Amino acid sequence: MLDSFLEFYNKIYFVDIIEFCGTFAFAISGVRLASAKSVDWFGAYVIGFVTATGGGTLRDLLLNTTPFWLLSSVYAWCTILALLAVILFRKQLVRLNSTFLWFDSIGLGLFVVVGTEKAISFGYPFWVVVILATITGTVGSIIRDIMINEIPAMFRQEWYALVCIFGVIIYYGLSALNVSEAFVQIITAASVFVIRLLATRYKLGLPTLKDES
Amino acid sequence: MLDSFLEFYNKIYFVDIIEFCGTFAFAISGVRLASAKSVDWFGAYVIGFVTATGGGTLRDLLLNTTPFWLLSSVYAWCTILALLAVILFRKQLVRLNSTFLWFDSIGLGLFVVVGTEKAISFGYPFWVVVILATITGTVGSIIRDIMINEIPAMFRQEWYALVCIFGVIIYYGLSALNVSEAFVQIITAASVFVIRLLATRYKLGLPTLKDES
Amino acid sequence: MLDSFLEFYNKIYFVDIIEFCGTFAFAISGVRLASAKSVDWFGAYVIGFVTATGGGTLRDLLLNTTPFWLLSSVYAWCTILALLAVILFRKQLVRLNSTFLWFDSIGLGLFVVVGTEKAISFGYPFWVVVILATITGTVGSIIRDIMINEIPAMFRQEWYALVCIFGVIIYYGLSALNVSEAFVQIITAASVFVIRLLATRYKLGLPTLKDES
Repeated sequence: MLDSFLEFYNKIYFVDIIEFCGTFAFAISGVRLASAKSVDWFGAYVIGFVTATGGGTLRDLLLNTTPFWLLSSVYAWCTILALLAVILFRKQLVRLNSTFLWFDSIGLGLFVVVGTEKAISFGYPFWVVVILATITGTVGSIIRDIMINEIPAMFRQEWYALVCIFGVIIYYGLSALNVSEAFVQIITAASVFVIRLLATRYKLGLPTLKDES
Repeated sequence: MLDSFLEFYNKIYFVDIIEFCGTFAFAISGVRLASAKSVDWFGAYVIGFVTATGGGTLRDLLLNTTPFWLLSSVYAWCTILALLAVILFRKQLVRLNSTFLWFDSIGLGLFVVVGTEKAISFGYPFWVVVILATITGTVGSIIRDIMINEIPAMFRQEWYALVCIFGVIIYYGLSALNVSEAFVQIITAASVFVIRLLATRYKLGLPTLKDES
Repeated sequence: MLDSFLEFYNKIYFVDIIEFCGTFAFAISGVRLASAKSVDWFGAYVIGFVTATGGGTLRDLLLNTTPFWLLSSVYAWCTILALLAVILFRKQLVRLNSTFLWFDSIGLGLFVVVGTEKAISFGYPFWVVVILATITGTVGSIIRDIMINEIPAMFRQEWYALVCIFGVIIYYGLSALNVSEAFVQIITAASVFVIRLLATRYKLGLPTLKDES
């Protein structure tokens, strides 16, 4: 357990950058959505922070390890930056109607990579990695939606969680090839981002389980 | 802690069967309820999985141990089976108006037994066992109801959590007698199942705390 | 980790009294709010218990330690007392329109002190202490509001979480002076209580992030 933790920490430099960007992107999406409701600045900060850290926190609780954001203040600062960005560039962010989707998709791609690597570093098999990577990518936005009293986006016919699974499969596939780790990480994150945007654009969906009653 | 964990694992064979059946029953109830909302297949799978594993996960987090479903892929497969069963036998399940209640009650009975035994194996006193068994039995369905944006069934005048407490009392009572463990488990689960059905049929309820304002 | 835990336990006597009072105050606020919905006695008990212990439970899960209420049955009894108090003095509690706010504010003040001391005893830096104290004070009522299907009070323009941060700053400020621990604890809790009441009375709020769209 400790060994795999240390091994994880030795390669943290690049992962750190990915996690920072993912946190920033998710925090922006959270703050942006909170600002559509009449939530004050502080509430927007909390919702942004929970959106950004919720998935990783549940993953770390399940792994029985200390949540990642308690080990460094960078994530708390990152959300302050995201809040400032939304306050300063509010008009531009609103005008770009797709802002929310973009930042949400960037965050999703980066967090799937982080979740996959952390689960693998703890020695878990493929199917656990799939679940933990999906939790890392989706739980933050589920909690966000529950807090602002909406049915989580994940359940409203989007390929939200499904792209996380594709992401993990792509990660495993690329890792089997003889390529550098950075390459695997970047291509996986980019694939998740692109698949999600395409799925949303072409309204790809799974059949629903409708009641005939 | 480790000793009690190993002791728990030595007798896992029979408990495993109970847990599998409970997971299947709860997953069916979750998928069945999700299908009443316009949720896609994957969303239904996630809701089924959370309904089935949510209570045990919170219990294991509180016990500071690794969640049970990370140790074996059987629970993830079990939910796939439940999803297939709902898709294949949809019409029959809808026609049987009481399907939901039946599977929910079977799951409740089985999970109360699992929760009781795990809490006892960690050496906790009676009152902690009561709370952890109740959490094992009820939290999955509470999270399910919160995710689909309804007030949890537990708070709408059903004997939901109360039967869990009865179950633990029955378990302790039977354990004091000179009977086999399997007998204790089966009678406890059956009692919880029967009490819940009777409570629902005769609309047993506790007085509510109404405001006069 | 163990050392800091034992150090925490050596000074538990006074903290215990604070935690008991805070639990009682929060349980009253939870039961009182549940009684406005048509929730039965048992449901009211559960909501009261979750309101009282939810924040501390998440704090302890994040600290990777056993939740405080599993170590002593006093908190479960405390909630029974709160339930009886609400049942017996229902009319008086309703007549006093501000009951809810008062008990909520008392609980907030006391729990901020408990959360601050526990986080410090685990050796975390200032900014982690701020977050964990805020979680201890606010998460119980957030879960309560989610369970009864309302947008958490914290996001509706109250100084709910902000006063927790002030509380931690006051605690650190007083600790730097040469005064007794009990004095630090009492003044911190009282300050949080007073600031929250003043903020509510004068409708202090932060600007909201409104959409122009």
